[in-house]
Amino acid sequence: MLSKSQVKYIQSLGQKKRRDEEGLFIAEGPKLVTELLKEQKVAIKEIYALKEWIQSNRQVIGSFPIIEIDEADLERISQLATPHAVLAIAEKINWDKNYVLKGNVSLALYAIRDPGNFGTIIRIADWFGINQIFSSSACADLYNPKVVQATMGSIARVRVEPVELETWLRENKEIRTYAAVLEGRDISRMEKLTEGIIVIGNESKGISDEILNLINVKITIPKKGKAESLNAAVASGIILSHLIL
Amino acid sequence: MLSKSQVKYIQSLGQKKRRDEEGLFIAEGPKLVTELLKEQKVAIKEIYALKEWIQSNRQVIGSFPIIEIDEADLERISQLATPHAVLAIAEKINWDKNYVLKGNVSLALYAIRDPGNFGTIIRIADWFGINQIFSSSACADLYNPKVVQATMGSIARVRVEPVELETWLRENKEIRTYAAVLEGRDISRMEKLTEGIIVIGNESKGISDEILNLINVKITIPKKGKAESLNAAVASGIILSHLIL
Repeated sequence: MLSKSQVKYIQSLGQKKRRDEEGLFIAEGPKLVTELLKEQKVAIKEIYALKEWIQSNRQVIGSFPIIEIDEADLERISQLATPHAVLAIAEKINWDKNYVLKGNVSLALYAIRDPGNFGTIIRIADWFGINQIFSSSACADLYNPKVVQATMGSIARVRVEPVELETWLRENKEIRTYAAVLEGRDISRMEKLTEGIIVIGNESKGISDEILNLINVKITIPKKGKAESLNAAVASGIILSHLIL
Repeated sequence: MLSKSQVKYIQSLGQKKRRDEEGLFIAEGPKLVTELLKEQKVAIKEIYALKEWIQSNRQVIGSFPIIEIDEADLERISQLATPHAVLAIAEKINWDKNYVLKGNVSLALYAIRDPGNFGTIIRIADWFGINQIFSSSACADLYNPKVVQATMGSIARVRVEPVELETWLRENKEIRTYAAVLEGRDISRMEKLTEGIIVIGNESKGISDEILNLINVKITIPKKGKAESLNAAVASGIILSHLIL
């Protein structure tokens, strides 16, 4: 059984302040932890897991020292509504090299506040081979357990760089910027992108006028029916699929 | 203040069994309730709302008799983690005419268990002008408050018909069926669809072999990066955008 102070420590990493102080984050669930174990980029510090998970994952675990816990312990340390067998504590990812905008397609996220959307967008970027995302300060915390969860491991492959978005866009004016608006160019009729920054707006408010002023190409996902809008992650997937594939 | 029995009654509609018995469902939040008020298809029975919401929504409310409640009451009747100003109780939607597969593009959902994904797919269908979805018995309950919430009002415009999917597909063999698999035709190079049934698979397991055998055209969202999969709602949006736009 875990001690009270161990439980308290792990629980405390649910808070951004504590994650920042410790430089750590939590990853939960078999799929996510298995993915992270395979990624050299992520330094896992501790893994807490149920006996059954340990027994059926010997190969991926290798020589990593797992701390075996029971359901009651898992319940106490988990941040999820329904805990899933395993929880890992890992060091925040350190991307050593500089990012490169030239010759790359990048995403920039303006105020993506919903952790599920944020994580899902990281996963979508990873699917389409986009490995750098720039996030405005109004985005959810990258290491929020729900963001980490929704990336499904892509957090280890896609660099997410927090920036002051307006200033950063001004500093990188040589790269063309794209953003979805109500009346822009039909994404299904555009040429494929090989370089550019695609800005994704807030779930309900889109992007600010200041940032809209810095956009070179306004694009649109044509609407054929009556829904007022699309979810931000869904819109990101649709836009990327048309500009990349 | 609401009576104990009122609160208990509203809370009970969080359960599928009670919703089925009463033929009712719950819709929460300003955006959703406002959308439903505009839709003739939805018969709203009761609306519970905070004073501020009532005052700032006179126009959309019209002559509908609103029951004013306070924050404490809202907290007690809400199914949401963070209640939002207004909750409506409505009758389940009754689609009178028969659905038509000929000349239409339809979606069929195989075991979409996550309520958020289910609702988001309904919203995406509505964006692309698809107004009929066939859901297998293993899908989440259409009237689960989280499904309703995620549709953002599209539940009133897109007919969702529960079916025994395998049998139903066999009965409708004259309509071409499409489903995403790992190696199929690149969706970005296909002709636009004007008729067909697009089958969307379960979040982690895809579609069953039995259903795969009934698929005429296997399609693929090409992968350029390393994510293992895409979220089911995101995949639906990408597929529809390529086959419709």
